[in-house]
Amino acid sequence: MDNFADRLLAATLDKGNPCIVGLDPRINEMPLFVNPGKSVAAERDEAAYYSIMAFHKCVIDTAASLVPGVKLQSAFFEQYGLGGMHAFYDTMRYARNAGLIVIADAKRGDIGSTAAAYASAFLGETEINGDTWSTIDADCLTVSPYLGIDSLMPFVDECAARGRGIFVLAKTSNKGSADIQDLRLESGERVYERVAAMINVLSEQAVGKEGYSSIGAVVGATFPEEARKLRELMPKSILLVPGYGTQGGTAENAALCFDKNGTGAVVSASRSITYDFESRSVSETRCMSEIRRRTEAMITDINAAISYSRGTQPEYAED
Amino acid sequence: MDNFADRLLAATLDKGNPCIVGLDPRINEMPLFVNPGKSVAAERDEAAYYSIMAFHKCVIDTAASLVPGVKLQSAFFEQYGLGGMHAFYDTMRYARNAGLIVIADAKRGDIGSTAAAYASAFLGETEINGDTWSTIDADCLTVSPYLGIDSLMPFVDECAARGRGIFVLAKTSNKGSADIQDLRLESGERVYERVAAMINVLSEQAVGKEGYSSIGAVVGATFPEEARKLRELMPKSILLVPGYGTQGGTAENAALCFDKNGTGAVVSASRSITYDFESRSVSETRCMSEIRRRTEAMITDINAAISYSRGTQPEYAED
Repeated sequence: MDNFADRLLAATLDKGNPCIVGLDPRINEMPLFVNPGKSVAAERDEAAYYSIMAFHKCVIDTAASLVPGVKLQSAFFEQYGLGGMHAFYDTMRYARNAGLIVIADAKRGDIGSTAAAYASAFLGETEINGDTWSTIDADCLTVSPYLGIDSLMPFVDECAARGRGIFVLAKTSNKGSADIQDLRLESGERVYERVAAMINVLSEQAVGKEGYSSIGAVVGATFPEEARKLRELMPKSILLVPGYGTQGGTAENAALCFDKNGTGAVVSASRSITYDFESRSVSETRCMSEIRRRTEAMITDINAAISYSRGTQPEYAED
Repeated sequence: MDNFADRLLAATLDKGNPCIVGLDPRINEMPLFVNPGKSVAAERDEAAYYSIMAFHKCVIDTAASLVPGVKLQSAFFEQYGLGGMHAFYDTMRYARNAGLIVIADAKRGDIGSTAAAYASAFLGETEINGDTWSTIDADCLTVSPYLGIDSLMPFVDECAARGRGIFVLAKTSNKGSADIQDLRLESGERVYERVAAMINVLSEQAVGKEGYSSIGAVVGATFPEEARKLRELMPKSILLVPGYGTQGGTAENAALCFDKNGTGAVVSASRSITYDFESRSVSETRCMSEIRRRTEAMITDINAAISYSRGTQPEYAED
């Protein structure tokens, strides 16, 4: 199976941008045209499933020709119970069938056989009495490093064996990321730098033809100094950069996560692309054209910042 | 609604022990009597659901009179897709209806509105257009601290508002827990000690009548020195102690997580109670009596170690 890093970089090259559209279902904020009819509304699970799928088909149909991938935030599906989880599996499948790279943003982390069960669920296969199938079948998954390297190995193994990827949390985009991630160690390093060193060692495991590894890292777009440092500490890791848009991360900050060739990172935006329309009564046609407009604006913004950053790289390096 | 810590301590008092039976569905290792008939086997989701529920009813029917609670490990359900998730919700409900405290061991952690969505999913309520219900409805949830205090607050809020609890990962039972959790800070503390200090501050938020808080911590049974330290650093937090049994944690180590009154902690065991029977052909009656025998042996072992530890506490304190 093809290396995940190669597949992701090929997709960004093909689409001409490194932008990822986030799918965070918030049914109460979706356009009203996704409301199920009365017959479905009687059943919560079916109603939630119907709304989420109707909206995501609209987003994916719009995004498929524009961006290399989508990111599904697991929490927003889980909050809707069985209907939400059903929509999680089917949104995955719908996006994959549309030719998109699919990122499962679930920040899983556990030990031993439990980590192996998560790896099977998201990236691998499930087997019952000889019958084998993939349940979630994501291209890649976000994972938490707090439990240590042995907790990451089942995921790394799936990456190597099945052409999948992981993005390990290094420095997240929220203020509170300082509480643990910024703690200074007796060695002088910060915790996130030590985590980056760990990720860098792991990144030797699944390096593709382009020189990038399937073992990537999450680096928020909200902390420019840290982004610069982390880009250097993990030269083989593709960086997944959330926090652009609603969370206040700028394209200029996000651009710091790219290498000198303007590659090696992907930038995601969720709410700012798919919610907050002028009215929930927006028509499906109008909704799709608005999602297209916003996605194109993000692409222009990010690509311009990457070009600018490359042109002025010596200046940035002196900051 | 009653404070979670009070409810949990009352349940341990009522049952006369602090033991928690873990439910980690591994269908290929379940007794053969839970295999679905041919008509169900054609559908993977239904087949997985059937086997998991049949086995868990057997475990819960046995455990309900013996222990205060059960712990559901989310990963093992997630690996079975939609059928597994269906069994997750229904096992939760079945255990709750049997009068057990239900711990969702999912180690969730994310930021902002995503953390709030997880909190709604596991501990709170979901709302669609004015219709409100609980999806998972666990009594408590394990959460990861890597993203900082702001990432924990939506969970803390549900604990205070709805009588629920969380156990924040402090020091996990695996070897690799040393990689991040044991790092020494420039202050001289270890990372897990700083996390414990964070948890201790949060534990002021939801203190019950017994003086314990609904904001607890996970402390593995495999590291005695750390367990002693963590018990002191978080005097108001109930400790959830995994790692007893298959992972090699002893009752003596687990006992270090209890206070001088022999309370303030719960100890969980999964595989060593519910798997590895002499044969998968074991009958349902024999399976239930074996689960009962093992649970009673664990209760005897843990209670004896707590009594011994209390009797010899000055000696332990000098170690």
